[in-house]
Amino acid sequence: ETVARPAGICTMLKLPFQESSKGLDAAFIGVPLDTGTSNRPGARFGPRHIRAESAMVRRHNASTGAAPYHSLMVADIGDVNVNLYNLPDSCQRIRQKYKEIVDADCIPLTLGGDHTITYPILQAMAEKYGPIGLVHVDAHTDTGDTALGEKIYHGTPFRRCVDERLLDCERVVQIGIRGSCYSPDPYKYSRDQGFRVVPAEDCWLKSLVPLMGEVRKQMGDKPVYISFDIDGLDPAFAPGTGTPEIAGLTPSQGLEIIRGCQGLNVVGCDLVEVSPIYDSSGNTALMGANLLFEMLCVLPGVKML
Amino acid sequence: ETVARPAGICTMLKLPFQESSKGLDAAFIGVPLDTGTSNRPGARFGPRHIRAESAMVRRHNASTGAAPYHSLMVADIGDVNVNLYNLPDSCQRIRQKYKEIVDADCIPLTLGGDHTITYPILQAMAEKYGPIGLVHVDAHTDTGDTALGEKIYHGTPFRRCVDERLLDCERVVQIGIRGSCYSPDPYKYSRDQGFRVVPAEDCWLKSLVPLMGEVRKQMGDKPVYISFDIDGLDPAFAPGTGTPEIAGLTPSQGLEIIRGCQGLNVVGCDLVEVSPIYDSSGNTALMGANLLFEMLCVLPGVKML
Amino acid sequence: ETVARPAGICTMLKLPFQESSKGLDAAFIGVPLDTGTSNRPGARFGPRHIRAESAMVRRHNASTGAAPYHSLMVADIGDVNVNLYNLPDSCQRIRQKYKEIVDADCIPLTLGGDHTITYPILQAMAEKYGPIGLVHVDAHTDTGDTALGEKIYHGTPFRRCVDERLLDCERVVQIGIRGSCYSPDPYKYSRDQGFRVVPAEDCWLKSLVPLMGEVRKQMGDKPVYISFDIDGLDPAFAPGTGTPEIAGLTPSQGLEIIRGCQGLNVVGCDLVEVSPIYDSSGNTALMGANLLFEMLCVLPGVKML
Amino acid sequence: ETVARPAGICTMLKLPFQESSKGLDAAFIGVPLDTGTSNRPGARFGPRHIRAESAMVRRHNASTGAAPYHSLMVADIGDVNVNLYNLPDSCQRIRQKYKEIVDADCIPLTLGGDHTITYPILQAMAEKYGPIGLVHVDAHTDTGDTALGEKIYHGTPFRRCVDERLLDCERVVQIGIRGSCYSPDPYKYSRDQGFRVVPAEDCWLKSLVPLMGEVRKQMGDKPVYISFDIDGLDPAFAPGTGTPEIAGLTPSQGLEIIRGCQGLNVVGCDLVEVSPIYDSSGNTALMGANLLFEMLCVLPGVKML
Amino acid sequence: ETVARPAGICTMLKLPFQESSKGLDAAFIGVPLDTGTSNRPGARFGPRHIRAESAMVRRHNASTGAAPYHSLMVADIGDVNVNLYNLPDSCQRIRQKYKEIVDADCIPLTLGGDHTITYPILQAMAEKYGPIGLVHVDAHTDTGDTALGEKIYHGTPFRRCVDERLLDCERVVQIGIRGSCYSPDPYKYSRDQGFRVVPAEDCWLKSLVPLMGEVRKQMGDKPVYISFDIDGLDPAFAPGTGTPEIAGLTPSQGLEIIRGCQGLNVVGCDLVEVSPIYDSSGNTALMGANLLFEMLCVLPGVKML
Amino acid sequence: ETVARPAGICTMLKLPFQESSKGLDAAFIGVPLDTGTSNRPGARFGPRHIRAESAMVRRHNASTGAAPYHSLMVADIGDVNVNLYNLPDSCQRIRQKYKEIVDADCIPLTLGGDHTITYPILQAMAEKYGPIGLVHVDAHTDTGDTALGEKIYHGTPFRRCVDERLLDCERVVQIGIRGSCYSPDPYKYSRDQGFRVVPAEDCWLKSLVPLMGEVRKQMGDKPVYISFDIDGLDPAFAPGTGTPEIAGLTPSQGLEIIRGCQGLNVVGCDLVEVSPIYDSSGNTALMGANLLFEMLCVLPGVKML
Ligand SMILES: [Mn+2]
Ligand SMILES: [Mn+2]
Ligand SMILES: [Mn+2]
Ligand SMILES: [Mn+2]
Ligand SMILES: [Mn+2]
Ligand SMILES: [Mn+2]
Ligand SMILES: [Mn+2]
Ligand SMILES: [Mn+2]
Ligand SMILES: [Mn+2]
Ligand SMILES: [Mn+2]
Ligand SMILES: [Mn+2]
Ligand SMILES: [Mn+2]
Repeated sequence: ETVARPAGICTMLKLPFQESSKGLDAAFIGVPLDTGTSNRPGARFGPRHIRAESAMVRRHNASTGAAPYHSLMVADIGDVNVNLYNLPDSCQRIRQKYKEIVDADCIPLTLGGDHTITYPILQAMAEKYGPIGLVHVDAHTDTGDTALGEKIYHGTPFRRCVDERLLDCERVVQIGIRGSCYSPDPYKYSRDQGFRVVPAEDCWLKSLVPLMGEVRKQMGDKPVYISFDIDGLDPAFAPGTGTPEIAGLTPSQGLEIIRGCQGLNVVGCDLVEVSPIYDSSGNTALMGANLLFEMLCVLPGVKML
Repeated sequence: ETVARPAGICTMLKLPFQESSKGLDAAFIGVPLDTGTSNRPGARFGPRHIRAESAMVRRHNASTGAAPYHSLMVADIGDVNVNLYNLPDSCQRIRQKYKEIVDADCIPLTLGGDHTITYPILQAMAEKYGPIGLVHVDAHTDTGDTALGEKIYHGTPFRRCVDERLLDCERVVQIGIRGSCYSPDPYKYSRDQGFRVVPAEDCWLKSLVPLMGEVRKQMGDKPVYISFDIDGLDPAFAPGTGTPEIAGLTPSQGLEIIRGCQGLNVVGCDLVEVSPIYDSSGNTALMGANLLFEMLCVLPGVKML
Repeated sequence: ETVARPAGICTMLKLPFQESSKGLDAAFIGVPLDTGTSNRPGARFGPRHIRAESAMVRRHNASTGAAPYHSLMVADIGDVNVNLYNLPDSCQRIRQKYKEIVDADCIPLTLGGDHTITYPILQAMAEKYGPIGLVHVDAHTDTGDTALGEKIYHGTPFRRCVDERLLDCERVVQIGIRGSCYSPDPYKYSRDQGFRVVPAEDCWLKSLVPLMGEVRKQMGDKPVYISFDIDGLDPAFAPGTGTPEIAGLTPSQGLEIIRGCQGLNVVGCDLVEVSPIYDSSGNTALMGANLLFEMLCVLPGVKML
Repeated sequence: ETVARPAGICTMLKLPFQESSKGLDAAFIGVPLDTGTSNRPGARFGPRHIRAESAMVRRHNASTGAAPYHSLMVADIGDVNVNLYNLPDSCQRIRQKYKEIVDADCIPLTLGGDHTITYPILQAMAEKYGPIGLVHVDAHTDTGDTALGEKIYHGTPFRRCVDERLLDCERVVQIGIRGSCYSPDPYKYSRDQGFRVVPAEDCWLKSLVPLMGEVRKQMGDKPVYISFDIDGLDPAFAPGTGTPEIAGLTPSQGLEIIRGCQGLNVVGCDLVEVSPIYDSSGNTALMGANLLFEMLCVLPGVKML
Repeated sequence: ETVARPAGICTMLKLPFQESSKGLDAAFIGVPLDTGTSNRPGARFGPRHIRAESAMVRRHNASTGAAPYHSLMVADIGDVNVNLYNLPDSCQRIRQKYKEIVDADCIPLTLGGDHTITYPILQAMAEKYGPIGLVHVDAHTDTGDTALGEKIYHGTPFRRCVDERLLDCERVVQIGIRGSCYSPDPYKYSRDQGFRVVPAEDCWLKSLVPLMGEVRKQMGDKPVYISFDIDGLDPAFAPGTGTPEIAGLTPSQGLEIIRGCQGLNVVGCDLVEVSPIYDSSGNTALMGANLLFEMLCVLPGVKML
Repeated sequence: ETVARPAGICTMLKLPFQESSKGLDAAFIGVPLDTGTSNRPGARFGPRHIRAESAMVRRHNASTGAAPYHSLMVADIGDVNVNLYNLPDSCQRIRQKYKEIVDADCIPLTLGGDHTITYPILQAMAEKYGPIGLVHVDAHTDTGDTALGEKIYHGTPFRRCVDERLLDCERVVQIGIRGSCYSPDPYKYSRDQGFRVVPAEDCWLKSLVPLMGEVRKQMGDKPVYISFDIDGLDPAFAPGTGTPEIAGLTPSQGLEIIRGCQGLNVVGCDLVEVSPIYDSSGNTALMGANLLFEMLCVLPGVKML
């Protein structure tokens, strides 16, 4: 420790900032958008606070041995310049930006933003990779069709992805799902598409290591995207989020899920729905920063020391 | 979702408001009283904040299949007009109001308020049903005799109930009990009455499904009241409460207890001790709203879809 | 005081709730929208928290002698069902709702919501009254042309009103304006239209009673709308707002402005930009509730006792 | 500065603690009661937090030259052991304790607690001194008759004092009064008794030094009690209080009032209505600590250096 | 309960305050220092807030039967007068103070303060007892060598203790260790010394009762010190701390560790790293107060009733 | 507005970041140190939060017409890498860094950090310019000699500057001074050196424009440094600070002071003592950002449009 933690411009994990993704193996990028939020807003400040709290995260992963910076060129490439007043236009801007990133053979690790953003991200990913697998941690399936008359908001991204054949539906798993719902059979849509839905109830008091063994088989060696909605965790561990649901996953389960993705062909990751204004201690943003670091640690090519 | 979550006057679960309990199978009612609180006040604002956060709760229970509004007429009937400056008078007002509700054959689901209020509620319940069974979730047995020279405050309601023979003592269970205490044998009184006391220590790292099987047998088919003190849960999950105790129940255990009451002859329920001013995220009130919805879902006559 | 302040469903000023504006002289109505916010969101919860804190406001205005409920039929008519994900559609919904209200000869008093909402409200007002006068309290002129490529957001409502000839430009005053800006001559547009711009600097340490004498002359006896952006006040008095600017108006000046409107032909009022999540004490919402009560007290027909 | 500010058991102003008032010229004493609060509770923790924040206050008053510890024996004598569940009993306990204090010729400086407590304090004072003069700073006259059917709560203490002839009514001044009210002529009662009522409106933007010249004449050399409700100040300066009213006094006016009491025959003082749970920064308690120190500095016998 | 919880000067557990440790079997003492903190400061106010929240803790331990005040003379002896501006000088002051305490045959129970303070405490302990055993609960091993060029800060105390042979290295256990780190093999140093390192991963979803059986064997009957860094717990249960790490121990595990020390020759204890300014509910301080009470309950000589 | 306010890495005022001060006319630089704080810590995070909130500040100063970026090359050059554990070493590091800056003919605008840092900054300034004039806004004179045995902390910087002849004592003004103190004549030292001390009492309810006319004469055309301790302002306007004092300056007075420095030969500026953890709304940091922008606007060479 040669630089004081509070010191310096806040980039993600104290990485260098650069404008473009050129020359990078992986890049952290923020999408400061919350226009798709149905209840508590504030995820627009997710990237800012995740970066601030990431000053606590160090260079090595003691638990897994991963030393990501030994293997990969990584930087913080700033934020997508979203249009806060127009959700479809924001989606266009995001899609365009991520197309540039994946075209540069750079793996994006996204600091959200509400979950709407995963839809245009996956548009860009699928354009390169074809339909991709998805490890989706969330309290919600996010497969609604419309709300308030709109097709695009944070409750519908994966429905839109299915509509546009962006997902390899047999290789989709949704973990941590729970909460009250609008219809009596809320998981039907997901299961009809071939998704595996793992309700939170099935996770209570259990290690998820066995589950992840099955997920690795489900995913095979084809491209996989990890989308981690922080509300997948119990609100005790991540109070700063927009649509919390009681009785969720524990942080150790969150780690087991991400660490269980090691060896997969991960082509992109996001951590969404951190709303710092509901997070008086800053610990939700800190959770987000750690989970993003853990995702970095399971990217293809990261060596274990 | 056709109405934005932030929109509308805050009634419980966005239900209609009506002045009286006439024609209702079940009614949510607030008791905005905290004059019986020994430490941190604020439960007087419990009903207000539980209503506000209940906007997140939807109509169906995905986990159990319950669709309460398909089976029951339910409304929010507002608050008891308590006397903040006089605890015995408040108890009279509460008892009178609940007498009207049970006389209308309506099941009250109460938004507390500190735990004192369960005493006059049970006076009204027992007047109709005779001594009733009790599923009591709490960090505390609330069977003290006096404090500061008074017989009525939030540490004594169940002692007063025993004094007045309102409880069917063999059909009382107290779950989640823990914490330091004034005497060396704090559970003696409860056990001497025939209550089953389940300390939190006996719940750590365990599913409570087996326990609830036993509880259902204990309760039989006679009338049962559910009294859920939010401090039964660990303070991580419900920080906004007046007398928190460390190392409590988890939300999944809370759900197992309530869901384990399905099939019982539940004649009333309360959720008490939410003190919103100690709950910076609002998540304790949200917890309260969800637990009350879950209690609604186990009322007699609610069909599973 | 016969009802405890914490008791009861939270309607504005503890007034009765009714669905429509029929039969009312004036109505409080919420617009829970913050999709037009450029910086800190949260004004979507303004109506909810203003209603909650309004429980502190009593029936008489001791300072002015106004007793509004002796003269007017007033109720809370709930919220406009806005579309959080689509700002133009929300504007349509607002315009339509306010058209119904003014068609019923009811004066709307609006609980915002971000300042975008004044644009569709004034569309509805002008449709009935023709171009109207405006008493606008704000740190910002809100006469920008576009931002992020959009013409509609909380920085442009009065430009749009000018575009559509909704304002009687010689009868517009903007009070409390201040802060850094995008162009070197930020008040030029307003002054070119004929607006009077009163910078905060001209208000420092002064009573605004003389100013309001001039404003009353400016307004004459034709219809006037009062639009009060809470950020017109100094952030010390109203911290819970989205785009605070230092060195603003004091509460006494805010009261002098509103009370100085007595005798004018006020046809509508709003109080916007309360963002409760930045307001840990609740006092910004309380300020909003009081200012709305004061606006009610200067409506035509309110007698002084 | 030889002791670190954060160090040590929190007594008022880092004074020694002693059980009784024997041998003291003046004593700080807490009354941790909020059972008389009509809206936001929490003043029960006023003494605790005022003591904690008082660690910032040093020994000399730079502005007035007062050096109270050079002239007077002063200590912190702890708290009255109030009965949180029974307001009349608490009043008895307070009265009894203060009788002991004044019998020991010790001047009490009280850390409230809600304003109810001034009633039993004045009972004890008047028992010794006869009807006394009162300098009362407050947003409210606190001369209501009953609320929720009760005669004793924080809105009625000075009515009860009049009823019992504890006040020398021609020597009562109430400063900072404002806010909405239950009746059209809220100051009538006070004025009918002979009180001088100085509304906040008469204080806006003014030094109160001239007013205090008049007050000193009004008070003469007979015994005077100072009762300072922190809500007399504007909520920007004292957000942590139970019934805030907008547009109040400034801190400099608060200091002018207290410093203007120098030379009077002050026989007791209180600072009430600090509710720390609404005071996220701790600055309301700090304000209370400073105001109490300033009251100490104007006690008879304090020399100016 | 004969004294209201909010009443009285805040000493630890409402114990009497006395200046010296003379005549005491055990003493609570605060060390209000945070100059050794690498990230979020605030632990200087740990003692103040732990004392305040300790008002909730009662005299008996219902779970274990311990009644510490029946067996031991215990008091609160205030705080070490640390030098906030000079860490080495503070260490000298601490060492000197603890030397006095242990020389008086009094067992110190410390309210921290950041973890730096354990180094001078152990200097004083070892001076009396020779190298001692250590039960160390923490997210971090705190065995760094230097940071920012300094050898003394909260990341190095146990390295310094090893350097000075204060620890009986075969009798050291570190429980709850986790988080990212500066080097690829962060536990190597500890293990090279002979410490047992128990990573948090090994504790997930497990009772620690078996572990503590092994620890008791490891410790034998020689002197043992318990150092409990509150960040050993998961931040959900103790958000108010300076360097939180995700996925930590649960409160029940914390209790199992402390209760598992019963029967050991415990010669001192500390609870460090409570930073109240990150703890909006006060529950982290409450956790600290309870853990310290539990440590008191396992001191040699405490009888079980 | 073409970039959303929440978007982008947080540099001061959204300026470009560059490592060195080369080629710059002025540079913003952070000093994230709070080891010199006597009471509430947290100023180490001042630079981070001032940068974050500065996203609200736009490019032009509407009030003065200043357009600083038209005249000067300005950037954010990051933070001094302070040693949090060693105050004298931090002072060395600061002095060295500022020597580089002034040697590059760049004017430093500092984001503090506690007030200790002004001492080494002035060492570097005086090395280049000789003894310089000082416009010092503060509640405290910061001319103490020692505390807790140390000569360097945030209460002594200007005493140390006098000791080392860094100040042109006849050209020093201290504005806003107030509060209780350790000695009966706390301003004597300052006045003995020839400083002008302007107590807050002399500022109450007054414009400071006349004062600043006198200050400009006092300063003449020789080098002047502006040191603005945010606690000079009343805590209502800047609650997030370490040693708040009641009854301070208003924001408009703060602006009058800074704007009154226009035309002076300002060679450096700082804004210190923002402690974000006591600032729940973020508005203290926003105040700091605005005041720093205003300082930039009065630097020599800035044209008015
Ligand atoms: Mn989602
Ligand atoms: Mn979700
Ligand atoms: Mn209870
Ligand atoms: Mn309880
Ligand atoms: Mn506006
Ligand atoms: Mn505005
Ligand atoms: Mn009062
Ligand atoms: Mn009052
Ligand atoms: Mn540690
Ligand atoms: Mn640690
Ligand atoms: Mn200073
Ligand atoms: Mn200062």
